[in-house]
Amino acid sequence: MTTIKDSVHDHISVEGVAADLLDTAPVQRLRRVKQLGTVSFVYPSANHTRFEHSLGVYYLACRALEELDVDGPRATRTQAAALLHDVGHAPFSHNVEDLLQRRTGKYHDDVGDIVTSDPVAPILDAHGVDPDEVADLVRGEGELGQVIAGELDVDRMDYLVRDAHHTGVPYGTIDTERLVRELRLRDGELVLDEGNVQSAESLLVARALMNPTVYNHHVARISKAMLRRATETLLDECDYDPERVRRMDDHQLSVAIREEDETAPYGERLATRDLYKRAVWAELVDVDDSVVDADYEDVRAFERDIAARADVDPEHVVVDVQGRPSMRESTTRVLVGGEIRRLGEQSALVSALQQAQAEQWRLGVYAPEPVAEKVGRAAEAVLGLETEGALIAENSSHGRYTSLEEFTGDASE
Amino acid sequence: MTTIKDSVHDHISVEGVAADLLDTAPVQRLRRVKQLGTVSFVYPSANHTRFEHSLGVYYLACRALEELDVDGPRATRTQAAALLHDVGHAPFSHNVEDLLQRRTGKYHDDVGDIVTSDPVAPILDAHGVDPDEVADLVRGEGELGQVIAGELDVDRMDYLVRDAHHTGVPYGTIDTERLVRELRLRDGELVLDEGNVQSAESLLVARALMNPTVYNHHVARISKAMLRRATETLLDECDYDPERVRRMDDHQLSVAIREEDETAPYGERLATRDLYKRAVWAELVDVDDSVVDADYEDVRAFERDIAARADVDPEHVVVDVQGRPSMRESTTRVLVGGEIRRLGEQSALVSALQQAQAEQWRLGVYAPEPVAEKVGRAAEAVLGLETEGALIAENSSHGRYTSLEEFTGDASE
Amino acid sequence: MTTIKDSVHDHISVEGVAADLLDTAPVQRLRRVKQLGTVSFVYPSANHTRFEHSLGVYYLACRALEELDVDGPRATRTQAAALLHDVGHAPFSHNVEDLLQRRTGKYHDDVGDIVTSDPVAPILDAHGVDPDEVADLVRGEGELGQVIAGELDVDRMDYLVRDAHHTGVPYGTIDTERLVRELRLRDGELVLDEGNVQSAESLLVARALMNPTVYNHHVARISKAMLRRATETLLDECDYDPERVRRMDDHQLSVAIREEDETAPYGERLATRDLYKRAVWAELVDVDDSVVDADYEDVRAFERDIAARADVDPEHVVVDVQGRPSMRESTTRVLVGGEIRRLGEQSALVSALQQAQAEQWRLGVYAPEPVAEKVGRAAEAVLGLETEGALIAENSSHGRYTSLEEFTGDASE
Amino acid sequence: MTTIKDSVHDHISVEGVAADLLDTAPVQRLRRVKQLGTVSFVYPSANHTRFEHSLGVYYLACRALEELDVDGPRATRTQAAALLHDVGHAPFSHNVEDLLQRRTGKYHDDVGDIVTSDPVAPILDAHGVDPDEVADLVRGEGELGQVIAGELDVDRMDYLVRDAHHTGVPYGTIDTERLVRELRLRDGELVLDEGNVQSAESLLVARALMNPTVYNHHVARISKAMLRRATETLLDECDYDPERVRRMDDHQLSVAIREEDETAPYGERLATRDLYKRAVWAELVDVDDSVVDADYEDVRAFERDIAARADVDPEHVVVDVQGRPSMRESTTRVLVGGEIRRLGEQSALVSALQQAQAEQWRLGVYAPEPVAEKVGRAAEAVLGLETEGALIAENSSHGRYTSLEEFTGDASE
Repeated sequence: MTTIKDSVHDHISVEGVAADLLDTAPVQRLRRVKQLGTVSFVYPSANHTRFEHSLGVYYLACRALEELDVDGPRATRTQAAALLHDVGHAPFSHNVEDLLQRRTGKYHDDVGDIVTSDPVAPILDAHGVDPDEVADLVRGEGELGQVIAGELDVDRMDYLVRDAHHTGVPYGTIDTERLVRELRLRDGELVLDEGNVQSAESLLVARALMNPTVYNHHVARISKAMLRRATETLLDECDYDPERVRRMDDHQLSVAIREEDETAPYGERLATRDLYKRAVWAELVDVDDSVVDADYEDVRAFERDIAARADVDPEHVVVDVQGRPSMRESTTRVLVGGEIRRLGEQSALVSALQQAQAEQWRLGVYAPEPVAEKVGRAAEAVLGLETEGALIAENSSHGRYTSLEEFTGDASE
Repeated sequence: MTTIKDSVHDHISVEGVAADLLDTAPVQRLRRVKQLGTVSFVYPSANHTRFEHSLGVYYLACRALEELDVDGPRATRTQAAALLHDVGHAPFSHNVEDLLQRRTGKYHDDVGDIVTSDPVAPILDAHGVDPDEVADLVRGEGELGQVIAGELDVDRMDYLVRDAHHTGVPYGTIDTERLVRELRLRDGELVLDEGNVQSAESLLVARALMNPTVYNHHVARISKAMLRRATETLLDECDYDPERVRRMDDHQLSVAIREEDETAPYGERLATRDLYKRAVWAELVDVDDSVVDADYEDVRAFERDIAARADVDPEHVVVDVQGRPSMRESTTRVLVGGEIRRLGEQSALVSALQQAQAEQWRLGVYAPEPVAEKVGRAAEAVLGLETEGALIAENSSHGRYTSLEEFTGDASE
Repeated sequence: MTTIKDSVHDHISVEGVAADLLDTAPVQRLRRVKQLGTVSFVYPSANHTRFEHSLGVYYLACRALEELDVDGPRATRTQAAALLHDVGHAPFSHNVEDLLQRRTGKYHDDVGDIVTSDPVAPILDAHGVDPDEVADLVRGEGELGQVIAGELDVDRMDYLVRDAHHTGVPYGTIDTERLVRELRLRDGELVLDEGNVQSAESLLVARALMNPTVYNHHVARISKAMLRRATETLLDECDYDPERVRRMDDHQLSVAIREEDETAPYGERLATRDLYKRAVWAELVDVDDSVVDADYEDVRAFERDIAARADVDPEHVVVDVQGRPSMRESTTRVLVGGEIRRLGEQSALVSALQQAQAEQWRLGVYAPEPVAEKVGRAAEAVLGLETEGALIAENSSHGRYTSLEEFTGDASE
Repeated sequence: MTTIKDSVHDHISVEGVAADLLDTAPVQRLRRVKQLGTVSFVYPSANHTRFEHSLGVYYLACRALEELDVDGPRATRTQAAALLHDVGHAPFSHNVEDLLQRRTGKYHDDVGDIVTSDPVAPILDAHGVDPDEVADLVRGEGELGQVIAGELDVDRMDYLVRDAHHTGVPYGTIDTERLVRELRLRDGELVLDEGNVQSAESLLVARALMNPTVYNHHVARISKAMLRRATETLLDECDYDPERVRRMDDHQLSVAIREEDETAPYGERLATRDLYKRAVWAELVDVDDSVVDADYEDVRAFERDIAARADVDPEHVVVDVQGRPSMRESTTRVLVGGEIRRLGEQSALVSALQQAQAEQWRLGVYAPEPVAEKVGRAAEAVLGLETEGALIAENSSHGRYTSLEEFTGDASE
């Protein structure tokens, strides 16, 4: 048994299969993958990694299994899944995930190849754990898969408090111990016990407030978009193998971007926080459905058209379309009067949070400062934006669509 | 200058008029008035007082004045008002406020008599402060009165974080320093600067989650109702002068209740946490408007009728009707695109919180455990409650209306 | 089972004998006995009570028993002792303990009378626990008595972190979970496991820094001395029964002091923080052994002599002699290389802390401000103090012996 | 003005010269230099960087200047020095500093070349700041240099609390705001005001407890020694330019080590936490002065001799000799009775801490696990260690010299 001191959960005892998995390369690699990618450009303390988060998820999973009275082989494989749930993450976490998925077919929760090969597979085997079952749990399948990846999963509980601790933004401070204590399994469904509507709501509220303030802060989105573009250039123009990039860590990817000629300009900008600016920052109501639902090829075409119309280098235009807002947690189940109810039915707050999420949605178009204004005008034309609704460069620093930026940004955007 | 170490704001420098007011009897009395009254029956760490809260409000008021560039006499009197804003509180804070108001005509924010007499008045005078202006500020009047008592007041900012710190419930953890930094005065109105819709929302969300979990926890409401009844008996049957009771501190009132024969049974129960139980705990939709809007006399009549019908001692029936839900903070003003907007117009969350508050409303009828069931049945009849909607004693400990009770109660109700 | 939310240990599950003891009068009375007595005159947030501390001690005792693999009847009675360990405290904790001990023969850890009578005895009996064994454990007797009252007891662990949390002074922040995890029983002795010399040292360091800053802050000592004097007057002149006073709570004692004519002047001063000042504040090296080792009668004689010489009312002179410095924790046992060693042998720090404690020792003589100077001069003569060594009133606020006072005092002394 | 949210100091307002320096390459590079180098192998949450630390030092310097009533050009250059004080750090902070110093002549506080060239110099110039004066301040020269680098510097205050926050080890939790408030300049010397002996002691105690637990934890020392060896190989065998290595960040150095054939074995071990073990771990009293005072060439000779005698690859022996213990803070000055005194004279604690530091000193010899035992025996012979005093591999995990290792190590050593 190893005891690890954690800044969030204090002492974490690691035992059995987890202790053996701890020092394997795929798990140790997570020490070099930041939990929040480029968010540290906004919150400079946010340098925590997927490694410590994985330990936290393991800790909470053990607590949940204890409360659910699960032990034996089912507990063992769930503990393994908890520690391994993030080994499929590409460098910089979600920042380049879609990009790599288009080429490798794998999202971060597709860990089948990792858990069925060295050095993980023999360790699982030695503990009588079937790697495929671990991969299923990581994808949220099966009764206990809900503990790892579901509406009430311990992944979310850990990252909310951990991100709050490391950014200094208090909104994510939820009561994880209470949530874990109130977990129950009813007819194969993971639910919160009676009297926990507020506990469940607090989880959603925390995320709803962390979203615009931390996860979708525009500076984080801009730097993420630049990193994505640089990585794409590595793949397309420098012949990097997507599977190799997927297995890199943050250090390797950021060094590669700085070293290759084709990507060095991005690398230099990111290394010195010389980021693109918002040429457009538009609300959902002001953007046509054809843009909101644009697929990857559409977006690339928009970028080319905007660059042509503005007469700028295509590298200097990034169109950043977020997916349509959704709120998976609204299906969180709570026991009310002995019956299982979906939180979305029970709580007026939840439907409001869904609407709030839609209000926070933004379309971004980014460009280097000197050309931001003309790129903005070109983008309005190409994307058919309402003139009043679209943010153009002149008022970017204090425009009505801005959210928190002067405040939390650790330098001018 | 005095520097005071505070568990919430760390170091508080007290200067000028505030330093002189600090050691006066009306301010020192607040050391013996708990901030949360009977809430410590639920959260045993919640023993913080109005004194430390008043220091916290003074601290935040000074910070706000700094950010608003207010100094000179206007600042001086606002600082005095901040430190004095709670000197009008009766013992146990809000618990017996209405009761005393019916007899003295004064709510807790009516501090006119205190600030215009010894020892406060001469100190204010020595600093060139008009006591009447202080009393006005405490009531929220005037431009800077909004800082002391309004939708964006520093009173609320302090109590939310302080109550979270002392109860251990994290929901109240807001970012007070950010809120204070973003305060602006526009055309005489106190507003939050651009980019602070989420900051404003966080303040409301914090209160919406603290309400059912802390402030309106049913154990706190029951003990508060018992304390109110005992105090009423002191006034009616033991000839205590309401003005004298208003100036007591918690120690004096609780000792008086234990010492007088007529109130000793309440005193004994409160001293040993042997509380009444819920005979009824009904939602807003299940309660007739005539009950929801009942005035004091109506409620006393209900109690007598229920006692008669259940054939129990009238002292053993307490009907507890909360006021209709309202949410003053929905009028919080934020700057959006250069215009002042009310948060309620801007934020889907706010209207949801108003609805959530209505969902959390409960009518309570309380009685000693042995008679709770029959009191419950009598109350249903007298108050015309729907059978399904009313909680009766049999299922009180885990019924569908309960909120958090097994969890947070520090002993059986 | 009851779960209680605590501001220090977060969630405390109370079960079995402890759950049954929780709502008894002797335990509930602790809600009205402050942990730190008059320290809140210095740190206004320090209003936490013996009740929440007792819950914390129960929590840590359960954790310790778990780590020590103790269960069954031995665990049950240790848990009972943990929850009950402070029920023998007089009001205001240690402030009047010596005074009452001289008349009742009982220190606060003498709980024999309480645990062998109603309502505690029948509950212990129902759980098969012998009350006398509980009383022994509370006095630190027997193997597991060391967990409750010894060099490594959970009492100290809880109060250090709790006092740090509530005063805002960080020095007491120790790693309780680590200390508890490293506890071992070796040949009947409670020790810390290998590799914990620093852990043990941290416990002593925490106390050494908390002592002058919190526990022995001169404002706390002055107000404590005044409270003691007032209580003595109640006993001597108002015929209060010492056993009755011992069973009072803080509320009852402070109200009694304010209500009786003989003690009302003290009550008034304490209620408005109008405290005596230091007339003398002298270091150990400057005080004759006959004064340092003076017994109660000697001290009373000093007071009378000083008052006579200064020609002031005897009530206006308080001589406050602390016991000689000692450091019980220096006998803490740690395993080093497989052998049990006393920390005092192993750690250079410990002997230094003992010396530091001697340096912090102070003799105080207190008097109302107008007479403090002449009382100081009289005290120098009566007590034979070195002129240079004794602090007299003129330089009391910034003299060389002062410790932290301007800083942490929440108003002028 | 930019406001940055920090996990330690909450809100940091960056203005003037500091705001302009913030986005320069030398400052932004610190985002990729970890504050604690390889300590994250022990405490996985310890991923905070020199960038956030530099912001913290800037924040505390501004507070100190405010308290010292310093403004104008003197303040401006001190603020610049605070933000720039760590730009001279090599990758992984202190881990490879000595190595590079032998080849470049520069320690981390030699920032002359950086501040006198682009892009820093023109910014300093625009604010009327002389770069040479900034370099002097960073070296601790001049009156205000003491604020940046001296016994009472804000550097230490920030790193103690920051390291405590991020490791989860509470010992570093000092009261920075109090320390800053009590700073005074007396006759050109930076001192703490009257009544602050304990405050000063707390700073030393914090460091004395953090040293063995965090900074000198043996796992941190082993990985640091391996990193140093790998870097030396880069310089000697791969012809890396020392000035180039000095300007790298952590990402670049760790990628380089993994990419070069000569260093890849170290890189692989570090990437998977497959660290060398202790072959020797000996106390100061057991080590001959000739070893304690060995210079760099001596140590390399020891390593070669041990490898030869044990018949192992020279790469598999690392001798790690710490400098002789010293305690610069013992010269901290405090005002006592109006005179400036050195803390070492005033405080028994300080001399004890110096002795404790000597007790914690360890000589380490490290080797891969399979050869650790024979390397240990060879080292005993070569270094002339007492047989009883030297730790050899057999008892390394629980030997008497170990400190905290099973506990805090996040995996087997």
